[in-house]
Amino acid sequence: MFNEINTPIRTIMTPGPVEAHPNVLRVMSTPILGQFDPAFLAIMDEVKEMIKIPFGTKNEQAFAIDGTSRSGLEAALIGLIEPGDKVLIPAYGRFAYLLGEICERAKAQVTYLEKAWDSVFEQDAIIAEIKRVNPKIVALVHGETANGQMQPLEKIGKFCQANDVFFVVDTVATYGGAPVKVDEWGIDIAIAGTQKCVSVPSGLSLITYNERVEKVLTARYQKELGLSKDFRNERHISSNYLDLSQLQRYWNKERINHHTESTSMIYALHEGLRMMIQEGIENGYERHSQNDRAIQAGIEAMGLFIFGDRTTKMPTVTPILIPEGVDGDAVRNTLLHDFGVEIASSFGPLQGKVWRIGNMGFSSRKENVLHVLAAFEAALLFHGAAIHRGEAVLAALNEYNK
Amino acid sequence: MFNEINTPIRTIMTPGPVEAHPNVLRVMSTPILGQFDPAFLAIMDEVKEMIKIPFGTKNEQAFAIDGTSRSGLEAALIGLIEPGDKVLIPAYGRFAYLLGEICERAKAQVTYLEKAWDSVFEQDAIIAEIKRVNPKIVALVHGETANGQMQPLEKIGKFCQANDVFFVVDTVATYGGAPVKVDEWGIDIAIAGTQKCVSVPSGLSLITYNERVEKVLTARYQKELGLSKDFRNERHISSNYLDLSQLQRYWNKERINHHTESTSMIYALHEGLRMMIQEGIENGYERHSQNDRAIQAGIEAMGLFIFGDRTTKMPTVTPILIPEGVDGDAVRNTLLHDFGVEIASSFGPLQGKVWRIGNMGFSSRKENVLHVLAAFEAALLFHGAAIHRGEAVLAALNEYNK
Repeated sequence: MFNEINTPIRTIMTPGPVEAHPNVLRVMSTPILGQFDPAFLAIMDEVKEMIKIPFGTKNEQAFAIDGTSRSGLEAALIGLIEPGDKVLIPAYGRFAYLLGEICERAKAQVTYLEKAWDSVFEQDAIIAEIKRVNPKIVALVHGETANGQMQPLEKIGKFCQANDVFFVVDTVATYGGAPVKVDEWGIDIAIAGTQKCVSVPSGLSLITYNERVEKVLTARYQKELGLSKDFRNERHISSNYLDLSQLQRYWNKERINHHTESTSMIYALHEGLRMMIQEGIENGYERHSQNDRAIQAGIEAMGLFIFGDRTTKMPTVTPILIPEGVDGDAVRNTLLHDFGVEIASSFGPLQGKVWRIGNMGFSSRKENVLHVLAAFEAALLFHGAAIHRGEAVLAALNEYNK
Repeated sequence: MFNEINTPIRTIMTPGPVEAHPNVLRVMSTPILGQFDPAFLAIMDEVKEMIKIPFGTKNEQAFAIDGTSRSGLEAALIGLIEPGDKVLIPAYGRFAYLLGEICERAKAQVTYLEKAWDSVFEQDAIIAEIKRVNPKIVALVHGETANGQMQPLEKIGKFCQANDVFFVVDTVATYGGAPVKVDEWGIDIAIAGTQKCVSVPSGLSLITYNERVEKVLTARYQKELGLSKDFRNERHISSNYLDLSQLQRYWNKERINHHTESTSMIYALHEGLRMMIQEGIENGYERHSQNDRAIQAGIEAMGLFIFGDRTTKMPTVTPILIPEGVDGDAVRNTLLHDFGVEIASSFGPLQGKVWRIGNMGFSSRKENVLHVLAAFEAALLFHGAAIHRGEAVLAALNEYNK
């Protein structure tokens, strides 16, 4: 027979999912409301407004999609792409290729601008490639969790806006942990998730887009056959579930019956965003930065090396080179099974080469940082790594007391 | 500023979402685990096995998709459909047209077999149409919540299996509330949701499929570009997010990193299914039937009429004709705002013509039925309906004491 779940407690210092805020966990126990109950619609309306704050936007459209982060990426891209459209994807890490995968499946003509994963692009290099390729859409990742790099965006966005190119940005790994300025940077669609710096379990994607995008969606809107047999549109979006033109009409006044909103996850999102706003978005960035500095100080005090360009490092991920002769997975297993601490491996060319310590949302706390450094040092020593003993935690503590 | 949510308590007697089981609400407060934490993978494995039980299947493949019910419908259909494929959709209610919408967007050639919404098809009529159209896929809805009708399936399924036609069935509104027998009835893919008879909040879709479908998915599998640049497939599925060939490899041994599983919703699903299994699936059907009989007895005792063919009525929905001269929405508003009771209106040709009382999952309880009937009688009288007074609740109580 099946018993009730009985889970171990973990210190989750991966680049997502991270520990949910206790208030978020609590609010999910609230009895549910019907999807069109006025009391629920009021909660949805507040969520829309709160989503905008960490996006740095005054866009009319901002809402949640009932799927994990990549459902929002797909909704954004297929909302804009029609077969044959040109998309430029500057790639400096794994998730650029997820954007590419989605675009290729939408029958876009995709051009990749590629580089090694250890740093970001000069913005001018991307702008030069936009001029050469002349795409309808530029899609890129703000913060690449695979390698911990964060791409500056403001010049690219301004160029796109001036040249009628759509600028789609994946902010899943930065939203709430590092500044994202959708309006100031000229981003047309930005996408985030709940399972990282929002401190909400995975399961929703957050999206905002401006009037340029709304115009495209309006031109492509097709009413669902079950609601009207007459409102057909040849340019309709390829998916029904991820059709932004319908989702928008579900989250706004029209309230079309598109799907049954994920009530408890919306409660969770409401509380997660509220906690972020209550802390102060800027204070949240400072907390992430401070914990990031402490992690880096601790790692370097052990004599380990941090991967990639430090001037463009994300505050929310620290990739650490696995020393020669150390079994990276064995260290992670000791951390998980003996200390209850989870850190991550990586993908593609970095698989087996770096560990990644995440620093996101509710997991980004001083005691977590200190605990992880102490556990990491012990696990490394246990597996025979030649590191400096007794330095890491002290270095972090000193960083906090500067 | 934004305050914490403060929701009213509702008696939810709609055809979904319904009241979540209290144990389900509670388990969602469990701290989360990482998506590849062995402790979480063990929970996923149990969920796979439990999903199969109300589906009545020994299929190897059964898992959850991180989206509401219609995400599963879309995943099922786009997993099978390639452009130009013929799909036959017998339509006796609204949700058949949702299947059609999804198939049309997938560029299938769709034939509808249509009828009035007051009854289901003779199975032989559908079989005759399959012979005429010769489709690759027959897709239909087991229980149509819009009109409360439930289509017998076993002859259709057997014919499809014998003739190499794929049989895709939407069991969203019946799974757990009425018998669903995937293996016995010859269903190739069945799809359900969480927000109805599973007593879990909306946000996950449940799916099972057999080896015939697995073969198609294997032939269409394409590895994600972010994980491998070499594994391309011209026949790949149109969506990345709803790609069953990838999802299957996330839920099985391969454990590809497709998305970040919705931890808390999986906890909820585990508990919801566990409660169903603990009650006994057959006992659950009997509970739904008994409460359905009580609702019908109460409604008829008031002198109201139940819409549609009673011999094929779903036990989980009762559509009630709105009497001449009564404002259906006004009655529903009184129920919601004065009694905290939610019942539903309907769609399409039935909009404004019927109310629908749902009877699903944890909402399907004797005290809910009695409370709703009492409230409904009072609300009808308050709005001037000419009904028999003081009969409804007694008729239901007598039904329970037969």
